[in-house]
Amino acid sequence: MPRYKLTIEYDGRPFCGWQRQSGQPSVQAALERAAEGLDERPVTVFGAGRTDTGVHAMGQVAHIDLMKQLPVAKVADALNAHLRPEPVAIIEAQEVSEAFHARFSAVERHYRYRIVNRRAPLTTEKGLAWQVPQALDRDAMATAANALIGRHDFTTFRDAQCQAESPIKTLDEVRLQTSGEEINVYFCARSFLHRQVRSMVGSLVEVGRGRHDGDWIADILASADRSLCGPVSPPDGLYLMNVIYPD
Amino acid sequence: MPRYKLTIEYDGRPFCGWQRQSGQPSVQAALERAAEGLDERPVTVFGAGRTDTGVHAMGQVAHIDLMKQLPVAKVADALNAHLRPEPVAIIEAQEVSEAFHARFSAVERHYRYRIVNRRAPLTTEKGLAWQVPQALDRDAMATAANALIGRHDFTTFRDAQCQAESPIKTLDEVRLQTSGEEINVYFCARSFLHRQVRSMVGSLVEVGRGRHDGDWIADILASADRSLCGPVSPPDGLYLMNVIYPD
Repeated sequence: MPRYKLTIEYDGRPFCGWQRQSGQPSVQAALERAAEGLDERPVTVFGAGRTDTGVHAMGQVAHIDLMKQLPVAKVADALNAHLRPEPVAIIEAQEVSEAFHARFSAVERHYRYRIVNRRAPLTTEKGLAWQVPQALDRDAMATAANALIGRHDFTTFRDAQCQAESPIKTLDEVRLQTSGEEINVYFCARSFLHRQVRSMVGSLVEVGRGRHDGDWIADILASADRSLCGPVSPPDGLYLMNVIYPD
Repeated sequence: MPRYKLTIEYDGRPFCGWQRQSGQPSVQAALERAAEGLDERPVTVFGAGRTDTGVHAMGQVAHIDLMKQLPVAKVADALNAHLRPEPVAIIEAQEVSEAFHARFSAVERHYRYRIVNRRAPLTTEKGLAWQVPQALDRDAMATAANALIGRHDFTTFRDAQCQAESPIKTLDEVRLQTSGEEINVYFCARSFLHRQVRSMVGSLVEVGRGRHDGDWIADILASADRSLCGPVSPPDGLYLMNVIYPD
């Protein structure tokens, strides 16, 4: 049975998240229905990361095993036809070996968090970014973010429901990029804890608003105390951008 | 009565267009309801340009006369509060003299048309860009676009319903900017004919698809024959970006 690696884009707004849940619309279930439509039998879709309700993806990765042997362009086009009208699209399909596993083979995950820093409500971008009306000190945010880079116990930035065995993770990159009213924060790590990115962004915005000074992020990280985390930012601004595998 | 110039952003998807029409949701009616909520009496909103069903704006301009004399930041915030949950936002309010008229004082209008050139359907951008699956020759499009610049009889690119007195307009700028899968076409003129931008974009994409050669745009423009225009592009990709006034 050929295995296909799928690169997937989706709008998280209408979904309860990536993971299949009975009675609720999920991205995984939408993809499984499409794959079943193509392969004419039940297909399980294995994703690289479970995104929460309302979180988007530009480059989620999943794998499926199909009975049918098809050219990869045909796999992508056929899945996209079966996905209609769901806001989920296969950007690319590649045939991979049976050793490839979307979740377990991944070595890097890249997230982007979009903040629109302005007083006016969002229109075309509603649900696609976090609108923060208070003026944000971008330099203070960028400096504070540096404290998060490296190997740490991220208990402070970990949701109470997180099922990871250890709160210790290595964050390879946190980078602020600002352009006009938009602030993007880019994160890269092998893996993340549940709600880690949104917890870190919520706390960075507290620094940006001037509610805490620049050392506060390092202090709460060192405390390993969840109750000290800033308010978790909304899912609207979060995008799973890219998942990296060994060559 | 103080007059306010409003800079307005909106998502065109839920609206029948800018202009008030009985029994249909329009941007103008949404703004007039908000202004009435603020001023506690009926208010007419005068816009710089009438956008069609599904066309968006990042910088539409309108003016209103209010009985209340308020700080401009308060005018914007109060209108935004009354606009909720419509996807229409006041980006800026300025007090202007009674000589200012959003439509008649305007000297330049800037439009952007967004094309996403890829096979996969759109997800987060559905309704916010035109997805063109066939490979487009961007250089051919850019070269052909130059033929449109200047003072011409634009009958070929004018909707049959257009009410302008003359089909002669001066197009100051047509500029293609491409980045990855995205192609943006920027247009600037004092004023445009009805559906002129979408007619020009639809024809440029015909050239990009290789259905016509590079001289075709100049030929159909010179013919002043509406029946020779390419298929009009969808409203999804069109944005009124900016309206310019004398100092």
